[in-house]
Amino acid sequence: MTNPAKNQLPSKMKQWVLASRPEGLATVENFSLQTVPVPKIKEGELLVKTLYLGVAPVMLRYMTNETEFEKPLEIGDVMHGRGVGKVVESKHPDYEVGDILQVKLRWREYAVVDGDDPYFMIYKMKNTDLPLSHGISSLAMSGFTALIGMREICNVKKGDQVLVSGAAGGVGSQAGFVARSLGGERVVGIAGGERKCKVLTERLGYDYAIDYKNDDIAEKLNEYFPNGIDVYFDNVFGEILDEVLLRINRRARIALCGRISEYLKSPDEYHRFKNLWRLGLQDAKLEAFFVYDCEKYFSEYEEQLAIWIREGKLKPLEHILEGIEKMPEALISLYEGKNTGVLMVRI
Amino acid sequence: MTNPAKNQLPSKMKQWVLASRPEGLATVENFSLQTVPVPKIKEGELLVKTLYLGVAPVMLRYMTNETEFEKPLEIGDVMHGRGVGKVVESKHPDYEVGDILQVKLRWREYAVVDGDDPYFMIYKMKNTDLPLSHGISSLAMSGFTALIGMREICNVKKGDQVLVSGAAGGVGSQAGFVARSLGGERVVGIAGGERKCKVLTERLGYDYAIDYKNDDIAEKLNEYFPNGIDVYFDNVFGEILDEVLLRINRRARIALCGRISEYLKSPDEYHRFKNLWRLGLQDAKLEAFFVYDCEKYFSEYEEQLAIWIREGKLKPLEHILEGIEKMPEALISLYEGKNTGVLMVRI
Repeated sequence: MTNPAKNQLPSKMKQWVLASRPEGLATVENFSLQTVPVPKIKEGELLVKTLYLGVAPVMLRYMTNETEFEKPLEIGDVMHGRGVGKVVESKHPDYEVGDILQVKLRWREYAVVDGDDPYFMIYKMKNTDLPLSHGISSLAMSGFTALIGMREICNVKKGDQVLVSGAAGGVGSQAGFVARSLGGERVVGIAGGERKCKVLTERLGYDYAIDYKNDDIAEKLNEYFPNGIDVYFDNVFGEILDEVLLRINRRARIALCGRISEYLKSPDEYHRFKNLWRLGLQDAKLEAFFVYDCEKYFSEYEEQLAIWIREGKLKPLEHILEGIEKMPEALISLYEGKNTGVLMVRI
Repeated sequence: MTNPAKNQLPSKMKQWVLASRPEGLATVENFSLQTVPVPKIKEGELLVKTLYLGVAPVMLRYMTNETEFEKPLEIGDVMHGRGVGKVVESKHPDYEVGDILQVKLRWREYAVVDGDDPYFMIYKMKNTDLPLSHGISSLAMSGFTALIGMREICNVKKGDQVLVSGAAGGVGSQAGFVARSLGGERVVGIAGGERKCKVLTERLGYDYAIDYKNDDIAEKLNEYFPNGIDVYFDNVFGEILDEVLLRINRRARIALCGRISEYLKSPDEYHRFKNLWRLGLQDAKLEAFFVYDCEKYFSEYEEQLAIWIREGKLKPLEHILEGIEKMPEALISLYEGKNTGVLMVRI
């Protein structure tokens, strides 16, 4: 409830609003950068200074109101987004100036957050001695997602043969480490291009990398999984999943985390699965999940992931762009498949 | 270890052996009925008099050695099969004459069972005051399968909207009762033909029946599930599953129990799924399972199912043919889709 920093605040701040709805992939023209007054807070609210903002493929769907779990976005509304921020003013008893929060900040330099509204999904970070950027990566949704997928959904255990697609991306760059920490014996990643594949084996702990742009995926799966696949952490969906189904072992577990192969297609164009019967034959499981359904476990996830970071078992790979001006291109670049690790913007 | 019944045993018995391998669906010509001496037992073994034998679609695959979990079957071998039997001789300390067992008896009137060999999967029944035929139906694999699918895989809870395909069959005839007992609000069954559909609503506790032979399935699913589907217990696979995927709710659970729509096809002819993306969109689960993977829980399953039978919440529907001579036609009739309830043969 203290408020020492009040008179150090600027009067103006920048924010990105939706200028127009994208058709297919977004372009920078779909966004508009505004300068507006830093807002005032009321009783029960916090003013949070944005430190880092993340980007996620789902944000494209916010722009077209195609998701049910975010508020509708009208033209002129500030873009939805979550990030790490520091409380600079508090009129809520549970939060103090200086607290580091993960919260729905939107794309702006300062955010008013209602301390009692569950919409904001405020998560107070504990391991703030680690780099705060980890509040976008390993100690946040992408790390939690890797942990949920590998531990809760796939129950990775000693000896498992594990495959990850989108392995150089935000979640995939951590999924390999998590699988290994849980006992995975062989951990193979799929990514696009030589450079990314090098990152997989040299920096992200993968035993082998499959380059979906240049390799024959079926052949490489046969080569790297002579004993079949026990666990598949899927960020891509489509044809690769169909190939994987042909090679799953009994009681295999597939975590369906993302479907980036389809986000820019219409359902008519989606892949038609010919090998789903293998799931039945092998008494296997295909389960999709959403990190926010597990909100009550975030604190435990943070603890586990922080332990692995301190032990050197999980090495967060972060790709940090500088300045709120970079937000639109950060989001768009996710779809260009160029980045490795967790992409974020330092504000 | 007592043995009062020994001198009441006949000297000869009947058994069915594999005469030839089927191409597609089996015919009676693929089987041969033999009369052979009743076997003698050695130390550690039991002689079990067969009381009831069950039939299951998977038996067709035994005949072509297409499953991994049964021993290969050569021409002239006694057909694999499980049933209920009574111990008539015992040279094993854990079993007494009079014990009622569920065990791999094969298709014969008396079976020698090694009391120490896990292959036989001996399960000693407790609720023997209930009809022993339930040792083929509700207190056995088909009942256990319904319970595992609805409780362990689908976690049916109060208010769930539940669909079952193959609902008039062995497992399906119990799945509706189990779902209701667990709190399912609306329980709808799919079966083929008017007669079966009448059985669903009049005898098997289903709220509504969909006749896949005469109804427009999509239309009926829309009509009976205005609030979407939470749980689907699938015995059929293929196109119906694809239609169901279009209508699943968030966090829906699909138990993949059987794939009778495909058992007589080659993989090339299998259905290609166009709506699997819905699993991702709805953070849902599709999980196949096999009752024998849960062997250590059979005793608890029997207790729960027996309680529901005594309470009148589960009403086993049994279709009992008389005499071991009927075994081949019992198996073949499974594929003709005519029977309702659990099909078995009293020996």
